[in-house]
Amino acid sequence: MTFDPSYKEQGLKSVGTRPLRPDGVDKVTGRARYGADFNMPGQLVGRVLRSPHAHARIVRIDTSQAEALKGVKAVVTAADLPDQSNGDAATFAVLDNCMARKKAMYDGHAVAAVAAIDASVAKAALKLIVVEYEVLPHVVDVDVAMAADAPVLDETVFTTGVEPAPKTPSNVANRSEFGHGDVEAGFAKADMIVERNYKTEQTHQGYIEPHACVANCNSDGTADLWVCTQGPFVYRQVCADLLGLDVSKLRVTSSEIGGGFGGKTHVWAEPVALALSRKAGRPVKLVMTREEVFRASGPTSATSIDVKIGAKKDGTITAAEATLRYTSGPYAGMWAELGAMTSFACYDLENVKTVGWEVVVNRPKVAAYRAPSAPMAAFAIESAVDELAHKIGMDAVDFRIKNAASDGSKSSYGPVYGPIGIGPTLEAAKSHPHMSAPLGENQGRGMACGFWFNFGGQTCVDLNIGADGTVTIAVGTVDVGGSRASLSLITAEELGIPYENVKAIVADTSSLGYNDMTDGSRGTFSSSMAAISAARNAIQVMRERAATMWDISVDDIIWEDGHAKAVGATHDNLAPLSVADIAAEAGNTGGPIAGHSELVADGAGVSFGTHICDVEVDPETGSTRVVRYTVIQDAGKAVHPDYVEGQYQGGAVQGIGWALNEEYVYGADGRLQNPGFLDYRIPVCSDLPMIDTQILEIPNPNHPYGVRGVGETSIVPPLAAVANAVSNAVDVRMFHIPVSPPRILAALNAQAKG
Amino acid sequence: MTFDPSYKEQGLKSVGTRPLRPDGVDKVTGRARYGADFNMPGQLVGRVLRSPHAHARIVRIDTSQAEALKGVKAVVTAADLPDQSNGDAATFAVLDNCMARKKAMYDGHAVAAVAAIDASVAKAALKLIVVEYEVLPHVVDVDVAMAADAPVLDETVFTTGVEPAPKTPSNVANRSEFGHGDVEAGFAKADMIVERNYKTEQTHQGYIEPHACVANCNSDGTADLWVCTQGPFVYRQVCADLLGLDVSKLRVTSSEIGGGFGGKTHVWAEPVALALSRKAGRPVKLVMTREEVFRASGPTSATSIDVKIGAKKDGTITAAEATLRYTSGPYAGMWAELGAMTSFACYDLENVKTVGWEVVVNRPKVAAYRAPSAPMAAFAIESAVDELAHKIGMDAVDFRIKNAASDGSKSSYGPVYGPIGIGPTLEAAKSHPHMSAPLGENQGRGMACGFWFNFGGQTCVDLNIGADGTVTIAVGTVDVGGSRASLSLITAEELGIPYENVKAIVADTSSLGYNDMTDGSRGTFSSSMAAISAARNAIQVMRERAATMWDISVDDIIWEDGHAKAVGATHDNLAPLSVADIAAEAGNTGGPIAGHSELVADGAGVSFGTHICDVEVDPETGSTRVVRYTVIQDAGKAVHPDYVEGQYQGGAVQGIGWALNEEYVYGADGRLQNPGFLDYRIPVCSDLPMIDTQILEIPNPNHPYGVRGVGETSIVPPLAAVANAVSNAVDVRMFHIPVSPPRILAALNAQAKG
Repeated sequence: MTFDPSYKEQGLKSVGTRPLRPDGVDKVTGRARYGADFNMPGQLVGRVLRSPHAHARIVRIDTSQAEALKGVKAVVTAADLPDQSNGDAATFAVLDNCMARKKAMYDGHAVAAVAAIDASVAKAALKLIVVEYEVLPHVVDVDVAMAADAPVLDETVFTTGVEPAPKTPSNVANRSEFGHGDVEAGFAKADMIVERNYKTEQTHQGYIEPHACVANCNSDGTADLWVCTQGPFVYRQVCADLLGLDVSKLRVTSSEIGGGFGGKTHVWAEPVALALSRKAGRPVKLVMTREEVFRASGPTSATSIDVKIGAKKDGTITAAEATLRYTSGPYAGMWAELGAMTSFACYDLENVKTVGWEVVVNRPKVAAYRAPSAPMAAFAIESAVDELAHKIGMDAVDFRIKNAASDGSKSSYGPVYGPIGIGPTLEAAKSHPHMSAPLGENQGRGMACGFWFNFGGQTCVDLNIGADGTVTIAVGTVDVGGSRASLSLITAEELGIPYENVKAIVADTSSLGYNDMTDGSRGTFSSSMAAISAARNAIQVMRERAATMWDISVDDIIWEDGHAKAVGATHDNLAPLSVADIAAEAGNTGGPIAGHSELVADGAGVSFGTHICDVEVDPETGSTRVVRYTVIQDAGKAVHPDYVEGQYQGGAVQGIGWALNEEYVYGADGRLQNPGFLDYRIPVCSDLPMIDTQILEIPNPNHPYGVRGVGETSIVPPLAAVANAVSNAVDVRMFHIPVSPPRILAALNAQAKG
Repeated sequence: MTFDPSYKEQGLKSVGTRPLRPDGVDKVTGRARYGADFNMPGQLVGRVLRSPHAHARIVRIDTSQAEALKGVKAVVTAADLPDQSNGDAATFAVLDNCMARKKAMYDGHAVAAVAAIDASVAKAALKLIVVEYEVLPHVVDVDVAMAADAPVLDETVFTTGVEPAPKTPSNVANRSEFGHGDVEAGFAKADMIVERNYKTEQTHQGYIEPHACVANCNSDGTADLWVCTQGPFVYRQVCADLLGLDVSKLRVTSSEIGGGFGGKTHVWAEPVALALSRKAGRPVKLVMTREEVFRASGPTSATSIDVKIGAKKDGTITAAEATLRYTSGPYAGMWAELGAMTSFACYDLENVKTVGWEVVVNRPKVAAYRAPSAPMAAFAIESAVDELAHKIGMDAVDFRIKNAASDGSKSSYGPVYGPIGIGPTLEAAKSHPHMSAPLGENQGRGMACGFWFNFGGQTCVDLNIGADGTVTIAVGTVDVGGSRASLSLITAEELGIPYENVKAIVADTSSLGYNDMTDGSRGTFSSSMAAISAARNAIQVMRERAATMWDISVDDIIWEDGHAKAVGATHDNLAPLSVADIAAEAGNTGGPIAGHSELVADGAGVSFGTHICDVEVDPETGSTRVVRYTVIQDAGKAVHPDYVEGQYQGGAVQGIGWALNEEYVYGADGRLQNPGFLDYRIPVCSDLPMIDTQILEIPNPNHPYGVRGVGETSIVPPLAAVANAVSNAVDVRMFHIPVSPPRILAALNAQAKG
């Protein structure tokens, strides 16, 4: 899909403004309908029975008592979700994670489910299901899991990507490697080297809305699923695969979404709800509790990362190397690979090598979380970079500016960059007032950079023009951060009409072509590509209709300022026709006016950001307080600056929580000890300062308005920025995220003893 | 929109078969969601206060007590639905009918409405609304209403279409005239003339599902309406007009429909529900009771029709004339005009004249009912035709065959016919075994013909192909009689794939371009035109994708039997690609594969049918029993013969009910005395024989498969066929529909006395 790049030259009327968001009133008046706000007549309540063991063979499940309970309409186990993966490991992993087959792989793994007439009957039924387990040794720590004597989760897994191929199974699913040059030669040239190990703990996206759905599965192979998701089309595909349905027979409607951040790009209870509905012959509503969300949806990887960076005294990095170990839960993913790819993406390096190790452990199956895998890698790399700058006596910002990647740099993961924003965000940080503001007692300042790929993918938009000239766009990317507003702005800009005349809706899967998920910061980027294309198609139709109305050649008609205008001396008497003028006559000129687009949105521009953080540490308790925080990020073009700023702030806040307090705490028995917001501490408003933002606009040359994705990069720098700030505040390097009060106190105590 | 007519020559694989309907399982398992099956969190219950008077000035409405009642969230009157009609009489009529302004025009006319937290509070609130009426004289009978001394409903109405323009207001809203030739000269040539007056009583469509909706109106001018309707796009337009909303901001989703037959082409309580929601700031659910449906939705016209037909002894009709008086409720419609147009459409007449008079009365606003206005006209004309045939001693079928219109005939309402089915249906009736079967005691046989225009109109289809090659079509015409099955069949036929691989859904108004209603027998005709066009567009896309996959020219690729096939000797090695093959690669060849169509479906073929009816009459009680009934009708092409037969049977049954028993009974006070199915008697299964059907297929040359609309014509002949049968059974002509037992007894008594 290519566009006329000249458009960018024109003055913009809508793009870049800050109108009210179209979903705003619904949300603030409580009328927005989230996952649990949908009901069908005759629906049953679904509930899931979960393993209390971190690792256990399922010897026997007896559901007969539960089935006999009055009010129970269906009980399902893995037998009701037969394996149709045809040997595809990823599909099998999704299936087995939805409902354990031979073994429960983590505390909270689903082993059975019931559908009953109400919640109390469902709860009673769960208690009547007898599961006989053979408890097995478990492992939850990434380094322990890699040890030779670790209990092996899956005897059929042999590490891939290593030569020679291993002969014994292990918990290391795969190895990936990226880089270029010769790191050994590079380190030999270095005047100073930093080599460290860093660890990060497992976190959860912490979306406020739990997973919720209503499934309605018919006996003729058709089904409906109302669900809170970031990707109704992907849920459709996955659920169709798992249940053996035709894709076209499953209609998925996405609700409003109370946060997703990657966690709603994967299915959890939805296939179970469909299986229950299929068995019960009635609709089934299944809403996960907060505890279930923590125990059995998809948190991040826990990591252990070795970093080695060498530099000359002038600040030139001569070599950089990282070994990244990521947990993926019980099934292999691509989390370590993503970490390895993003590690050094901010820098222009002659010699760089990153190796990722994907490690299975007895924890929930890892899911995407906003720029997945990048924050942990950035924590390690940006900590080491900071330490190295300190060691060679260079300012941390100047050191990064000296080594920053730029247009033409070969990235550490392969591609050569075009115009990018890492240098500009660093320059902006250097000159930002925050950087030179005085610090108080016990305060430290840190900074860090971050990178994310951004993604394009398959996208469709249907644009329909009403008889009054107002416009509807049906998009397929779920609006998680205001994309309906942004897409309406871009559509209005293209058509030359007011923003208020465009209404964007998220279509269901039967009403629009396939769309990839709202992930990879692709929502506004990709759907705007399709909206622009659809709008231009509609303009072509309107020019043709104007030609019919005027009885002149379409070649004599241009589209300008939202009007069809006749050009040429002989047409001087023809007053321009507005969208409304043309739409009013549509029934007499060929029918309703529409524009459509199905495309692969190539060319999502890579994204970079630089964050500055001031932290105050109480040296007696180790408690921390972020006192100032600034996000500087390249948006390409901020379509709706409010929502770009919102993305910057939201990512920063999530990163701050991850950096300071959030972590999954497992007991020796492998059970999660803090599955709730009382014990899993995410930051709330009162914990935070106002997050300052600065939007840079280095246009993405592949988008007609220069748009880049903005949703994910902002979570990448905070772990390092906060840790660097804490390190600077207490003058002790912090190597383990979260830098929670106990860890800070321990570091201070170790320093005092040392 | 024109199509390649050569397609019809090919052998059909899907069109004409009888697969399971896609909505069938949902409906028989009770999971289909009708209007009242939708709920929103926080919704209120809406209830309407209705006038107990047939005609009354509204002096004062005091809602203060109702508003003060705990649990009442909104009370609306006409003041909350301000007149935005800008002098458009039709729009004002819809508005005033939804909520009476200055006067209540009929028993049941809405005067106020409440939204409350539950039904009991709403009911109590209605009782607290004080309405002060000044009761006015009323008129409900069409002939009485036309009299000079009748109370005039609207002093601003002066009959249009008459010369000179009248100087005094009256209840006659307009006069319309159709015909050609010189009827006086024609009658002068006749050997025999029949001249009679006929009357028919007002009936209701009798759909089992009452009107129901949930309205959710936001403070920012956006709104959602979930509603049982035949036309979500038309409801959107009308409600937007009445409430002053942008068309694109109102999203209307149609539920499954439990019968409509024209009655759900008009809005009734929906604008009131939106107004209540707007005022309450919460969703409002409004479900009409059966009594409300009878009193205040849209029944048919009651009529009084004069017919005069003259013929020569050889059976040639020399002249035909009709004067048709139709009630329209309190607001003028086009009901008499439709009656005047359809009256003599079955016949090839040299001299014909019809005059329609539209008469306002204090009855509910008339709505469309399946071939609106045609059954009453056909009753009158086909009764007179029968009597005339009898008088000249000719068989009733032969007489009609002799005068039947055919290809090239100038119709009585203007256009010249193309290939049509009246002659063939009459010939089929003549040779049908039913026509020569022996009759029992007290039995009579009648027959009659019927005509309906059929309609095309604006239509859109979006066709999307899933990754597994299965297909979704999103259509905008509500499925009232199995059109999803028919449209899936046609789409499958076009694409060359199995019917089971196509799923049709009815899209909401924000997901598809504008569609006219499912009326005028246009659902399958028009949406299939759009589906065919969309499928052909998708085939073009698939050919292009195959060209990309094979790296050959698209010109070397044909589409055959559901596969892209490379032609030419150099491509012998290329195995044909199925839809699934191409769809699986869509992400790598340009994105999702779709086909779209927005069009005006011109060329709906006119429709004709001939019915044969045997009735047994109990001479002591006047009770009747239909003992055999045969419908013969031209379908053009029966896409799904089961549903064509279903339409034939359904229309016949409704016509039988209308002919024999159904009627609105008004008291002297102008109040409806039988607003319920106990007193308004529609036929049930045990009242009826199996309705035999015979499908003829005279292709519509304007449709690629020859399809004509089939939904309405079948209700046109029964009034006359049944009345002719009764007349023949008792040997007394019946002139007043319904020919209920009291009327039959009265006729028999009059005959005995005479």
